[in-house]
Amino acid sequence: MVVVVEQNATEKEIEGIIKILHDFGFDVHRSTGVNQTVLGAIGVKPDFDTRQVEVLPGVAHAYRITEPYKLASRTFKQERTVIPFKNCQVGGDAIVIMAGPCSVESESQIFTIAEQVAKAGAKFLRGGAFKPRSSPYAFQGMGEEGLKLMRRAADEYGLMVISEAMDGTQIEVMERYADIIQVGARNMQNYNFLRELGKSTKPVMLKRGLSATFEEWLMSAEYILSGGNKQVMMCERGIRTFETATRNTMDISAIPVVHAKSHLPVVADPSHGIGIRDKVIPMARAAVAAGADAVIVEVHNDPDHAKSDGPQSLYPNQFEEMMKQIRVIAEAIGRTIA
Amino acid sequence: MVVVVEQNATEKEIEGIIKILHDFGFDVHRSTGVNQTVLGAIGVKPDFDTRQVEVLPGVAHAYRITEPYKLASRTFKQERTVIPFKNCQVGGDAIVIMAGPCSVESESQIFTIAEQVAKAGAKFLRGGAFKPRSSPYAFQGMGEEGLKLMRRAADEYGLMVISEAMDGTQIEVMERYADIIQVGARNMQNYNFLRELGKSTKPVMLKRGLSATFEEWLMSAEYILSGGNKQVMMCERGIRTFETATRNTMDISAIPVVHAKSHLPVVADPSHGIGIRDKVIPMARAAVAAGADAVIVEVHNDPDHAKSDGPQSLYPNQFEEMMKQIRVIAEAIGRTIA
Amino acid sequence: MVVVVEQNATEKEIEGIIKILHDFGFDVHRSTGVNQTVLGAIGVKPDFDTRQVEVLPGVAHAYRITEPYKLASRTFKQERTVIPFKNCQVGGDAIVIMAGPCSVESESQIFTIAEQVAKAGAKFLRGGAFKPRSSPYAFQGMGEEGLKLMRRAADEYGLMVISEAMDGTQIEVMERYADIIQVGARNMQNYNFLRELGKSTKPVMLKRGLSATFEEWLMSAEYILSGGNKQVMMCERGIRTFETATRNTMDISAIPVVHAKSHLPVVADPSHGIGIRDKVIPMARAAVAAGADAVIVEVHNDPDHAKSDGPQSLYPNQFEEMMKQIRVIAEAIGRTIA
Amino acid sequence: MVVVVEQNATEKEIEGIIKILHDFGFDVHRSTGVNQTVLGAIGVKPDFDTRQVEVLPGVAHAYRITEPYKLASRTFKQERTVIPFKNCQVGGDAIVIMAGPCSVESESQIFTIAEQVAKAGAKFLRGGAFKPRSSPYAFQGMGEEGLKLMRRAADEYGLMVISEAMDGTQIEVMERYADIIQVGARNMQNYNFLRELGKSTKPVMLKRGLSATFEEWLMSAEYILSGGNKQVMMCERGIRTFETATRNTMDISAIPVVHAKSHLPVVADPSHGIGIRDKVIPMARAAVAAGADAVIVEVHNDPDHAKSDGPQSLYPNQFEEMMKQIRVIAEAIGRTIA
Repeated sequence: MVVVVEQNATEKEIEGIIKILHDFGFDVHRSTGVNQTVLGAIGVKPDFDTRQVEVLPGVAHAYRITEPYKLASRTFKQERTVIPFKNCQVGGDAIVIMAGPCSVESESQIFTIAEQVAKAGAKFLRGGAFKPRSSPYAFQGMGEEGLKLMRRAADEYGLMVISEAMDGTQIEVMERYADIIQVGARNMQNYNFLRELGKSTKPVMLKRGLSATFEEWLMSAEYILSGGNKQVMMCERGIRTFETATRNTMDISAIPVVHAKSHLPVVADPSHGIGIRDKVIPMARAAVAAGADAVIVEVHNDPDHAKSDGPQSLYPNQFEEMMKQIRVIAEAIGRTIA
Repeated sequence: MVVVVEQNATEKEIEGIIKILHDFGFDVHRSTGVNQTVLGAIGVKPDFDTRQVEVLPGVAHAYRITEPYKLASRTFKQERTVIPFKNCQVGGDAIVIMAGPCSVESESQIFTIAEQVAKAGAKFLRGGAFKPRSSPYAFQGMGEEGLKLMRRAADEYGLMVISEAMDGTQIEVMERYADIIQVGARNMQNYNFLRELGKSTKPVMLKRGLSATFEEWLMSAEYILSGGNKQVMMCERGIRTFETATRNTMDISAIPVVHAKSHLPVVADPSHGIGIRDKVIPMARAAVAAGADAVIVEVHNDPDHAKSDGPQSLYPNQFEEMMKQIRVIAEAIGRTIA
Repeated sequence: MVVVVEQNATEKEIEGIIKILHDFGFDVHRSTGVNQTVLGAIGVKPDFDTRQVEVLPGVAHAYRITEPYKLASRTFKQERTVIPFKNCQVGGDAIVIMAGPCSVESESQIFTIAEQVAKAGAKFLRGGAFKPRSSPYAFQGMGEEGLKLMRRAADEYGLMVISEAMDGTQIEVMERYADIIQVGARNMQNYNFLRELGKSTKPVMLKRGLSATFEEWLMSAEYILSGGNKQVMMCERGIRTFETATRNTMDISAIPVVHAKSHLPVVADPSHGIGIRDKVIPMARAAVAAGADAVIVEVHNDPDHAKSDGPQSLYPNQFEEMMKQIRVIAEAIGRTIA
Repeated sequence: MVVVVEQNATEKEIEGIIKILHDFGFDVHRSTGVNQTVLGAIGVKPDFDTRQVEVLPGVAHAYRITEPYKLASRTFKQERTVIPFKNCQVGGDAIVIMAGPCSVESESQIFTIAEQVAKAGAKFLRGGAFKPRSSPYAFQGMGEEGLKLMRRAADEYGLMVISEAMDGTQIEVMERYADIIQVGARNMQNYNFLRELGKSTKPVMLKRGLSATFEEWLMSAEYILSGGNKQVMMCERGIRTFETATRNTMDISAIPVVHAKSHLPVVADPSHGIGIRDKVIPMARAAVAAGADAVIVEVHNDPDHAKSDGPQSLYPNQFEEMMKQIRVIAEAIGRTIA
């Protein structure tokens, strides 16, 4: 931490600040300038609340100089994390495509879609069995029955399964049927849940919260990593801004920025990112061009009658078109589609 | 729902839209203007996703015309909800003050603070036993032991207890020790948790999410209300904006706006709203002036050594000063401090 | 500026950074810790772009340690700025009320309103003659003719005049008729205009930009102050956030925060801050309770037929009611209404 | 406009609303449902403030059903606007690259950079002569002298010139030296300036304001278009959000969304969009992949000593690398680089 002392601070105040920093356990290096004194407070305390120093008399500002996360950072681990699955790996050169409906609705629905997305090149079947809905009156998902159907459909067409758990009580059932456990944006800071996921053997895809900074998002990854589960993927799915013409504002810069700060793979979700079907393809192209390691999209065989998120789900033929387009983009930047 | 048809839509497209609206179960009233046709789709479907209609060929826009929540709305219930406690009631003319440390840290700490805040006029002792911390390495609270201490301290000084549960697994223990169960901002859309709270007999204080709209916040209240628990309080605690000089931006307008939309009481939390000790008092004054039914503030006997949120905690003498100031503000608007 | 060096930076890199800092004209103090080196770069360069150092090899972060503004800061000038007018002063203990229509529309309109607001206790007549409208097809104001009417109406009822200039070309005419020149939110960073205002002899009220940080807002004040015009007032009028139920989100915390950072008076504009007539009064109360030095509100004798902003304009009897309520709030905090 | 009547409105209230709508000049179509009445108010009034109806007794909501802009919309003009220049056209299949320093600093600087960017494939030389700086103490640009240098350098290497005017007084000089007049983000709603640009014969590039919605941005274009100047380009350069790790959040979705709403070309500015040199290339790739018609980037021969924005300026060899990468992306989506 660096502590900047006020220009008119007295020597007594400065000594008081140094004493308190020592009490907190820091080593202190003092730089006395003509106009201003700066104190370097050395000591690894990633969770130290700098406001505790900022309120002291004579302190102008206090800045943290280390990232608050460790296991998630590139300083800690330089080589990229690659997460292996039976039919592909996430985080390598080949970009992995995950596709499927918002919600599992029926056997015929999920089998139809699984076949279509597998044929077009997806490696993962996505689909919700437990649905976090803003209305208590809305369709809440098929539960375990939906997971069973997904697993069977995925196995039939050589796909892996990704699905969302809403809290710690759903981890065990999810481990039985899914290959990746998804944490939704609204649960990104549900710390008890994150801690439980740290003990799971399954890879976790952590969606960015609606108004989470990169740092907070990586801190949530740190919760899972520090519990012992090293298989974490970060998923950008749009943030909340003042713009309401799109459902969210998809922050494409999250892809290069998180890659620079962390070794974890980054997944892009253009369906939630933009929320409008006919803009999903250009946003998927942009995500691949910016370096995404995987793309997750909503595809439905009959979006007009989907029980949820139909308006942002691609028709199967649009998904095929998307695959064709991102394949050439991937090649253009020296990658492939897995 | 109102469906606005594109200016150059064909008669066939319009008929197609009407057919689909009928399929969704709506009654349709058609207004044909010179330039544009408007369809009124009547039928109470509070959770209907209007984007399902917006993607249809020929549709320009679709607007929901009813609030998506019912039990939380003033249309449903005109008279204000008043929640009774042994020593006061929240939602009546008298404004209730809740005060205490961010975290319970020890017996002597919580008893000292309880005595001080009770003496100055607080009716509730606040304090965290289970702490949602953004860092996995930070102090996570004393757990049930902390709740026991709080209960004893509160009983000793005639106070009620408010404390935060982080998920459904902590409701039962919270019911044993607390008088109000607090839902934190990060959990505002933890729907499984909200559903469980709907079955509790304890009043719930629901904090607004960092980037939650008034509508989303009231929808989360609807989850609890629809489960059968009618004792819900809304707590404004600052939202996330572009400004970083304050911890959050406290949205004082939430007080009159939620009062207009809903019958539920509104609590103001200036400590988290602004995050800087020396601005807490003016913000508390503003909240009372704007009509808050309760104010919850962080007070610590020794903020400089608090285990969490020390920098935004008031010193006991500042709390006394705050009480003095808001008492005259309350009187100025024809209310009292409970 | 404080420069934090990367943990694994080489000695050669550190020496390179120090050399470049010297080239930029800084004195450098080096603190070498066990894990990390910190450099204090001393030298008053308020406009230095810290990113110029952050991109150097071996640099982890660079922090500015001085405010980028000088004349606007409390460090520079401790005593509060008080701006005197014939009938009152802004920035003293007495709170000044400014009221009037969004736009001057006719002689009878402005005389009627001037009489009503003067009678209820306003000291300033507000009103637009040049209107910044988001639509090129909307009413653009009466121009100089409107200013003449305002001046006559104000003189008739003992009021001062505040009106908005939209750029440098309108300053001269404004100086002839108005007592305060208002800079609108959309012009807060129109630097040529600000520079021109620095040469004016008239006090300036500088509205906060829709997404301006406190620092940017004070930097814009610095433009005017550094030109020689010391009579600047800051006006909080709501910022843009994700919430759309209110026109803007009025940031009441701006009042105590700007008071702490600067000696300039702070004016609150609840009409634009919330944009809904029936919430203007509670927001005006909150602003006064938080310490505003003046309140500016829209009042119209016939809001339902106003040419602009009718829906957020108070009826004259509502304005009287507001005056009554804020008078007691002012007294409660030891102030008066001018 | 669609007016939704409150569920418990009386017949008298409904008739009152209809009367007022007639007074405003609307034709009214009434749909009476079992629970609720909806009124269609027909009549083209793009600037009508719907709040004027929302405040009427008995009104629940009022929605505008037409876009407030006309000339900028695709409804008005289906075919894309293509703006021709001597060496290229903006808005056609070929993507135009504009490159150069933040500020013109000297003859040797601008000639060096012009040569480098021309060689690498740029068609436009960008550079600031009049600089909008947040600090009054920062370098403010070389003025007309800078424009002369830019023109000569551009002519020498077969480039066109784009530069920013800060207000109406600078249009005339800009017309003499530049091929496109740039409007900066902070001036997007400087309406007097926009109106003046409507009379210019030069094409205008209109940057999106820091917190401008798509609609407001297009309304500002409407100002220029309605003045008679049909050659307008929209430039996405990042918006302000809660995230501070990047200078702005570049909204890539602006590209497909504005293309859907309007016939005007869309330019992407990844330099300001992200503000960090080493992330500019992935963001430029993303912009091209999403369909941008032009890309404008900052390039400097010696960014470490640039007078402004050095940290976000590309080195010449990075610009070459960027050109190589976006060329393959352009081909991948069936376009070329001009």
